[in-house]
Parts: sequence; C-alpha cells; structure tokens
Amino acid sequence: MTIKKTDYPVHNLIASRWSSRALSGEQITEQELLPLFEAARFAPSSYNGQPWRFLYALSTDPEWPLFFNLLVPFNQEWVKNAGALILILSRCAFESNGKPSRTHSFDTGAAWMSLSLEGVSKGYIVHGMEGFDYNKAKETFAIPDDYQIEAMAAIGKPGSKELLSKSLQEKEVPSPRKPLKDIVFRGSWHKI
Amino acid sequence: MTIKKTDYPVHNLIASRWSSRALSGEQITEQELLPLFEAARFAPSSYNGQPWRFLYALSTDPEWPLFFNLLVPFNQEWVKNAGALILILSRCAFESNGKPSRTHSFDTGAAWMSLSLEGVSKGYIVHGMEGFDYNKAKETFAIPDDYQIEAMAAIGKPGSKELLSKSLQEKEVPSPRKPLKDIVFRGSWHKI
Repeated sequence: MTIKKTDYPVHNLIASRWSSRALSGEQITEQELLPLFEAARFAPSSYNGQPWRFLYALSTDPEWPLFFNLLVPFNQEWVKNAGALILILSRCAFESNGKPSRTHSFDTGAAWMSLSLEGVSKGYIVHGMEGFDYNKAKETFAIPDDYQIEAMAAIGKPGSKELLSKSLQEKEVPSPRKPLKDIVFRGSWHKI
Repeated sequence: MTIKKTDYPVHNLIASRWSSRALSGEQITEQELLPLFEAARFAPSSYNGQPWRFLYALSTDPEWPLFFNLLVPFNQEWVKNAGALILILSRCAFESNGKPSRTHSFDTGAAWMSLSLEGVSKGYIVHGMEGFDYNKAKETFAIPDDYQIEAMAAIGKPGSKELLSKSLQEKEVPSPRKPLKDIVFRGSWHKI
C-alpha cells in the first residue's frame, strides 16, 4: 500500500487512496461489491435526497460488454482486468417535491468518494473515469432524462504493474496535487 | 460516537459519520482545520484537474459574519456554535486547456466527502448545507463566473444536545437511507 506524502497528517484511508490501474484480472463477487455501495448509501446529501444511483456489471456478467464498450480505448486497455464496472448517475430533481436539485452532482460525488474509500479499506483498486461515451451510455441503458450520468468507475483487485503496457506502467504513481494555498482561502476570495 | 446500523459492514469512519447539529461553541484553530483541507486536496478528479476551492472563516475571524449572514435562519440557529464555516466552490473549466469540465461538481463532492471524513476522524462535527443564499455568496465574495458555488459546511466540536432548541434536538438522529435495491442496479436500469 502506497501512503502519499501529505503536507498535513490525514487519515490513513485517505492518504492511501490513489487511482492505480494495475489490476489482477481476478473476479469480484456481488457480496464483495455490496459493502462499497453500502458506504455510498450513507453519504450526506441535501435534504437527505440521496440522488446517487449505481448501475453495474461484474466482469462475469452477460452485460459486462455493454459497460466495457462505452470506454475509450485508453481505459479499455487496463479496465479489461477489472472485476466490476460501475456507471454512476444522479437524479436531477428531488423525489419529495420534484424541484430541481442544486447539489445532485456534488452529493453524488460525495457518495462516490465514500464508495471509493470503502473499496480502499478492503484492498481493492477503485478508479473513477470520465473517459467513456456519455451519450452511448444514456442510449445503451435507456437512462431517463431526469437522471444525469456523472462518471464510471472500475473496481478490481490489485495486480502486478508488469501486466500493464510500458506507458501505463509509467503512470503507476499517485498524481501530484496543487499546494493548499491555491485551493484554500481564508476570509476572502483571492484566487487569480 | 454513533455507529449507524448498516445492512453490510462498512469502515467505521464511514459508519460513524452523520450530520449532527449539536456543536459546543468552542473555537477551532487554523492548524486544526488544515488537515481537513489536506484530505480534500487528495481526492480524485477527472484528469487530476482538482476543481475544488474552499473559502472559509473561523468564528473568531472578522469575516465570520460575511459567511454566517448567508445562512437561512434555520441554519443560523445551530451554526452559531460552529468553529468554522466553509464555502465550497468548483472551477467549471479545466485550467490546462479551458475546456468545460463535465465533472467539476461531482469531483468537488468527492473532495467534500474526504474533508468530511477527515473531520470525523478527528472528532469534529462536519455538516454540509444548501440552506444559504447562493446569489448573495457570489456577490459577497466576488466569485468569478467561471467558478460555481456548490455548498457550505459548518465545522465544530461536539456539544451537548441540550444546547439546541427542542425541535432541533428531535433531529439529532442519523437520517434514514433508501434501501440498496432502490439505488443500485445490476446489469440494467430498472428504476421506475
């Protein structure tokens, strides 16, 4: 497990999360996956609206190709060794009163992070992706207009880096981050 | 610490997070707060764009009223005992190429959840809010048009429930959640 060097000490679960692509190709069962969705389920949301929805397939499911074929080739190259693929959606309006939600994407991002950290705690690789065809996803799964497609995620068991192409192997390091001073402002907005 | 009853076992940090309002009124220092932002900093984002931004004031800061006065009266009632208020924003386009980002709110929600869980790990109450004047926030802090205001959050030290009004005391329980079958679908979209 890689623990990132952080400027301030943070919880191990958060410091050890990163978006690796070195998957083993091993299968994942529904029973292994459900706690990750359970973690997402307990995220906070505006008026407790719980706008997050998850559509998924295990690599052994007949529907796996429907998910896999949405991905850009760059992602297909490594996601072929994942055990599950998830399409993450959000409901754009509150169910309680039909009013448009301001935070449906934001809240769903919170649920996604919860899912991701739960996966990390269980030793899985959890890797979010924007590199897929959003229109094709909407069409393939007949997603209603009142739901928004947010992202996809690959879940898998960690494997040897050697299973990746040379160019992907070079990417097997946690990405750098902006310094805190560029993202956190006390008292007033002073970002250029 | 309240551990929620979950249908599947999830990490303690996730199971123990909930949006309490019972704050002690104690101050929080910048040094206490910075690890929460550090946790947000290490969230995942599309192309590592890191669209999240945080504008904040401690309760002892001269700018505190600028934040506090944005809140609806319902939130002011309990946030008066918080130690810090955060305005959470996102950058709508990638800095690298100026292209609109599809996931800036979603990614910022992930960073928010990371911040929230880091706060929980340190024993703080971290409570997100949509109940504030978004237009006034934009005006007050002269937020540029290429940034979107996502939410606010109150951070504080836990206090006695008795400090809250009777009606707020009744809300001091974790909110219920939809069953997993209503938010997770295997293989195909079958939500009504």
